Amino acid sequence: MFPEYDVIVVGGGHAGCEAAHAAAKMGCSVLLCTMNMNTIAQMSCNPAIGGVAKGQIVREIDALGGMTGIISDKSMIQFRMLNKSKGPAMWSPRSQNDRMRFAEEWRLALEHTPGVDFWQEMVSGLVVEDKRVVGVKTGIGLEIKGKSVVLTNGTFLNGLIHIGEKQFGGGRTGEAAAKGITEQLVDLGFEAGRMKTGTPPRVDGRSLDYSKMEVQHGDENPEKFSFSSETSPLKEQRTCWITYTNKEVHETLETGFDRSPMFNGRIQGLGPRYCPSIEDKINRFAERDRHQIFVEPEGWDTVEIYVNGFSTSLPEDVQYKAIRKIAGFENCKMFRPGYAIEYDFFPPTQLKLTLETQLVENLFFAGQINGTTGYEEAGCQGLIAGINAARKVKEESPFLLKRSDAYIGVLIDDLINKGTEEPYRMFTSRAEFRLLLRQDNADLRLTELGHAIGLASDKRLEKMLDKKNDTAKLINDLKQKKLSPESINEGLEEIDTATIKEKITVEKLLKRPQLGLSAIKELDPDIHHYLSKYPQEVLDQAEIQVKYNSYIEKEQQMVEKLNSMENFRIPSHFDYLTIPALSAEGKQKLHKIKPETLGQASRISGVSPADLSILTVYLGR
Amino acid sequence: MFPEYDVIVVGGGHAGCEAAHAAAKMGCSVLLCTMNMNTIAQMSCNPAIGGVAKGQIVREIDALGGMTGIISDKSMIQFRMLNKSKGPAMWSPRSQNDRMRFAEEWRLALEHTPGVDFWQEMVSGLVVEDKRVVGVKTGIGLEIKGKSVVLTNGTFLNGLIHIGEKQFGGGRTGEAAAKGITEQLVDLGFEAGRMKTGTPPRVDGRSLDYSKMEVQHGDENPEKFSFSSETSPLKEQRTCWITYTNKEVHETLETGFDRSPMFNGRIQGLGPRYCPSIEDKINRFAERDRHQIFVEPEGWDTVEIYVNGFSTSLPEDVQYKAIRKIAGFENCKMFRPGYAIEYDFFPPTQLKLTLETQLVENLFFAGQINGTTGYEEAGCQGLIAGINAARKVKEESPFLLKRSDAYIGVLIDDLINKGTEEPYRMFTSRAEFRLLLRQDNADLRLTELGHAIGLASDKRLEKMLDKKNDTAKLINDLKQKKLSPESINEGLEEIDTATIKEKITVEKLLKRPQLGLSAIKELDPDIHHYLSKYPQEVLDQAEIQVKYNSYIEKEQQMVEKLNSMENFRIPSHFDYLTIPALSAEGKQKLHKIKPETLGQASRISGVSPADLSILTVYLGR
Ligand SMILES: Cc1cc2nc3c(=O)[nH]c(=O)nc-3n(C[C@H](O)[C@H](O)[C@H](O)COP(=O)(O)OP(=O)(O)OC[C@H]3O[C@@H](n4cnc5c(N)ncnc54)[C@H](O)[C@@H]3O)c2cc1C
Ligand SMILES: Cc1cc2nc3c(=O)[nH]c(=O)nc-3n(C[C@H](O)[C@H](O)[C@H](O)COP(=O)(O)OP(=O)(O)OC[C@H]3O[C@@H](n4cnc5c(N)ncnc54)[C@H](O)[C@@H]3O)c2cc1C
Repeated sequence: MFPEYDVIVVGGGHAGCEAAHAAAKMGCSVLLCTMNMNTIAQMSCNPAIGGVAKGQIVREIDALGGMTGIISDKSMIQFRMLNKSKGPAMWSPRSQNDRMRFAEEWRLALEHTPGVDFWQEMVSGLVVEDKRVVGVKTGIGLEIKGKSVVLTNGTFLNGLIHIGEKQFGGGRTGEAAAKGITEQLVDLGFEAGRMKTGTPPRVDGRSLDYSKMEVQHGDENPEKFSFSSETSPLKEQRTCWITYTNKEVHETLETGFDRSPMFNGRIQGLGPRYCPSIEDKINRFAERDRHQIFVEPEGWDTVEIYVNGFSTSLPEDVQYKAIRKIAGFENCKMFRPGYAIEYDFFPPTQLKLTLETQLVENLFFAGQINGTTGYEEAGCQGLIAGINAARKVKEESPFLLKRSDAYIGVLIDDLINKGTEEPYRMFTSRAEFRLLLRQDNADLRLTELGHAIGLASDKRLEKMLDKKNDTAKLINDLKQKKLSPESINEGLEEIDTATIKEKITVEKLLKRPQLGLSAIKELDPDIHHYLSKYPQEVLDQAEIQVKYNSYIEKEQQMVEKLNSMENFRIPSHFDYLTIPALSAEGKQKLHKIKPETLGQASRISGVSPADLSILTVYLGR
Repeated sequence: MFPEYDVIVVGGGHAGCEAAHAAAKMGCSVLLCTMNMNTIAQMSCNPAIGGVAKGQIVREIDALGGMTGIISDKSMIQFRMLNKSKGPAMWSPRSQNDRMRFAEEWRLALEHTPGVDFWQEMVSGLVVEDKRVVGVKTGIGLEIKGKSVVLTNGTFLNGLIHIGEKQFGGGRTGEAAAKGITEQLVDLGFEAGRMKTGTPPRVDGRSLDYSKMEVQHGDENPEKFSFSSETSPLKEQRTCWITYTNKEVHETLETGFDRSPMFNGRIQGLGPRYCPSIEDKINRFAERDRHQIFVEPEGWDTVEIYVNGFSTSLPEDVQYKAIRKIAGFENCKMFRPGYAIEYDFFPPTQLKLTLETQLVENLFFAGQINGTTGYEEAGCQGLIAGINAARKVKEESPFLLKRSDAYIGVLIDDLINKGTEEPYRMFTSRAEFRLLLRQDNADLRLTELGHAIGLASDKRLEKMLDKKNDTAKLINDLKQKKLSPESINEGLEEIDTATIKEKITVEKLLKRPQLGLSAIKELDPDIHHYLSKYPQEVLDQAEIQVKYNSYIEKEQQMVEKLNSMENFRIPSHFDYLTIPALSAEGKQKLHKIKPETLGQASRISGVSPADLSILTVYLGR
């Protein structure tokens, strides 16, 4: 019934969609096999994309030629650039999205990607021959052949939902769990673990009193995720609201603690520390007498509301009583209770940097199955797994991103080398070169790479090169163009900044913390005229590069120094066990993880600097 | 957690949505409790509404103030008035719909209906006290109180899906079956039965060769379902296609007959005779060497295609091999196989005409649970059950439609009095007064009734009265206005119809079979000017009433004669068992069904004309 596919993607979540799209764009025949074609790219939890560090990932996915940015743009109902008051390394785009539109846009995008076939069914196992995957088995007993397989099962593997003392199987509320795959992988020698995550109750927006909440508008001049011209910023936006829990809410929640699956040990899996449930927050931060709650609409027209910050698996009656004590929620009606879900994951130290498994060739894992949490984290892994699955089939070299290239590089390097005990999410603090890994320059960093592998289009590349060249030209001009005291001192005084004594280059003026190009533009008609020729993104780019030049250069030098070690490759069959001088832990970890380079070895937790120099000696470097 | 609701509707399918909407519009507090809020108003099978007799039902639902017409209008991608070449009793509106839009429009419509609350969960049982329902129990163990409950579980009760020799539980593919309710109802004394239905494989439109098929366009001047001004006809439409099976297809299908769950006895439930599977058609009509296949898009943008006419539960490999032998399907890719589903239903003879159960007070059944098939059949039952649940709670009299009022009246009367052995669908032949029950006059027949119970809006009533008055005025004028030979004979000759000798009224001219108002309009400038003042629907209405006047009047008289008997009420505790003269079967059926009127008694299969006259005597009539 089926041809042999180049790539079979199991699961149509955020990871699976990016994987299928990327592999097909790169010329592979792809089968996306997912349990229900109506739930492709469902947002399991909050209808929002991006945010701190995650927004950067979306921009990176987009720059490489992935789709999450475009889909987010097409379905967004509000946009905000977070941290605009901080340095540009912290600026993070975030959108509120229409849940139904998001899913529909992804499905249509995949349908219109030549090379992607669909099959709606549960995959119940893999076909593995000689430690190499050659296909999948489905629930009704079909065998479908594939040269490579990408598993992106999300929270579905032996998913178990908890609400108070009740528990029932499921991959998400109302959807069945997936059985069989974990068991088979364990038989094949994989180590599996258990994690948990949770989601808040959904409520009826008609039952809330917004006058008791703070309004949160979108940005006045909203931007967007995609660097491409396929999308445009929102003209109209929906509002969100902010409210707070209070002591009464906390006390009410506490009445359910003895029935909480989190506190009475019924849930074994570790949850995301940085995305805690409300009962967790109350428990861990007993001193705080309120927590912020974001009240977010689920779409343009629906009355369904997402209660961000109120994730909980307490008994539903406790959820209900407590939520009604939040300001504005006095008459709240619930659509469904919050819940926690436990699911199987596979410690990602069992993977290569390509996201191929070490144990079974041509088998790739991406998304929540690797112990991460979040759509963006899932999406970018899907992209990398899809790319590498395609390249493996085409017998091309692995596609890897370094920690200094992208947050995506940081994420994968962290996962493979450090593993993760709790659901892994991205933070800016995980990146040592975060001034380089900004959201504004993701295209400059990555579009060429995406284009070289046949993913980012020619148009994207041209657009990026135009931006790059224009920026360089602009910066160069800013270094030449001088402004005189006569022409600008009046203006400088008006905006309360020091006047100048003699002519000064625009570049120098721009380095003043208080001054941006938009302010400088107003100081002098000539410079106004000159700057008006440039699109905003070029102006922004130039401004950032000029202002932060010295810091950026310093990071760049560090990167280069590290790269020389980073890139030194370790033979894949290098036998660590025979090197007596290595520490016991270092030896064991190196043996298990089999780092591909000295750089990778250096970041394995448990590998000491001493181990590293011993290694360097043995490798004859 | 929950207030006591006036009406709890279990299930958000086509019946449940109409029930919830109607009860809320009539002022009740309503809870719609459904397994998954993302699947509200899912079309389980073909993405189309209306068709012969079904289209009339949609018009009737609309005239009463229900929503199926409006939702269909908003989501349609093609419209056709079927049987336009036959008499107006046969004209039947049919739309092809965007599956996702249809579901989304229904969900949004319900969200924006004040009084409808939502709860997403599976209902696992009823709370019954003293033979009266007082609420429902949910999967996680909640009890929700309701003064009345409408069950609309569709194909979900102990649903069992079959594909070839494989079977698995489910209410639809990818969705869980509902357990518990049947068992409880049987304990309460209900009789349950088993039925089956089926659906074709879904395929990838990109893999079809449309050049080998016939194109089927929508109507040139498409109409719509709703009488209201809330919707407007399509400006653009999508095309469908027609192709045919052939001998090779049939032979291929036959290779799977030994593994067919239909033929080897594994499926016990009876399927819809008039909506047979392709294997059924081949088997029953062995002499036919081809069957028609309608190739229908599932929406505006999706590539998914519905293969209407190819419903099957043969093994998937047989489905695949056979479908590829259909012209245009040579390279067909499937998204998922067709399947059959068996489910529990409750023989509808256990209901009253209000759709309340005889055994448990305030409990109503509507939709496929009553042994019907089809969205329209489900929707209209939901409407009637919702209305009557609301009226019961408000202690108002039952709302009943007679067989001469509406197809809806025919449907419910058939179900309650005759029951059904196989899935019941509507046909024009089921209606004895089908010249009265036309799609064009559903508003004239029903809007006043809908308005009187607080369902149809004032605006609808006004619009209907305008149409009625305008039509009456127009018909009156047509009887007065005369045309002379000089003015029209030339025109008559041009269109090849007999000329006139002396002046003739427009009415008389209109009675000629070949002539419609649109043709008459062109014969004479005065009449052209006069007719141009009227909207099309008034012109159509007047034309039909003039042309078919004598037939319509004859049916009207029959209705009146029957009504005098029809309306004669039988006391609800009338004891048939003590009347020795009744036939054994008649006695038993009357005792079981407890007809409310002599008319109802007359239509019970097994009640003979002799039984009826005996009854008439006993009732002192
Ligand atoms: C209850 C809940 C709460 C969450 N809360 C948060 C949060 O607060 N913050 C946050 O950042 N993230 C949260 N997440 C996580 C976020 O939803 C995931 O990180 C993200 O969706 C993972 O994407 P994925 O592609 O890996 O998997 P998913 O989005 O889970 O998609 C998996 C897909 O695979 C399909 N599938 C699974 N198994 C099979 C099989 N055997 N055969 C065929 N198809 C299969 C499924 O149908 C589904 O389409 C939450 C998730 C859940 C369920
Ligand atoms: C495979 C298949 C093929 C079909 N083929 C045809 C055809 O060829 N022609 C035709 O005319 N009709 C066909 N139908 C029938 C058509 O889909 C139904 O007649 C129509 O959908 C019935 O509407 P309903 O409202 O009664 O139930 P459904 O549309 O089935 O809706 C039932 C709803 O109730 C919910 N539900 C069920 N149990 C519970 C519970 N315990 N708690 C909470 N929620 C619950 C479900 O989630 C669902 O939303 C087919 C149906 C199926 C499944």
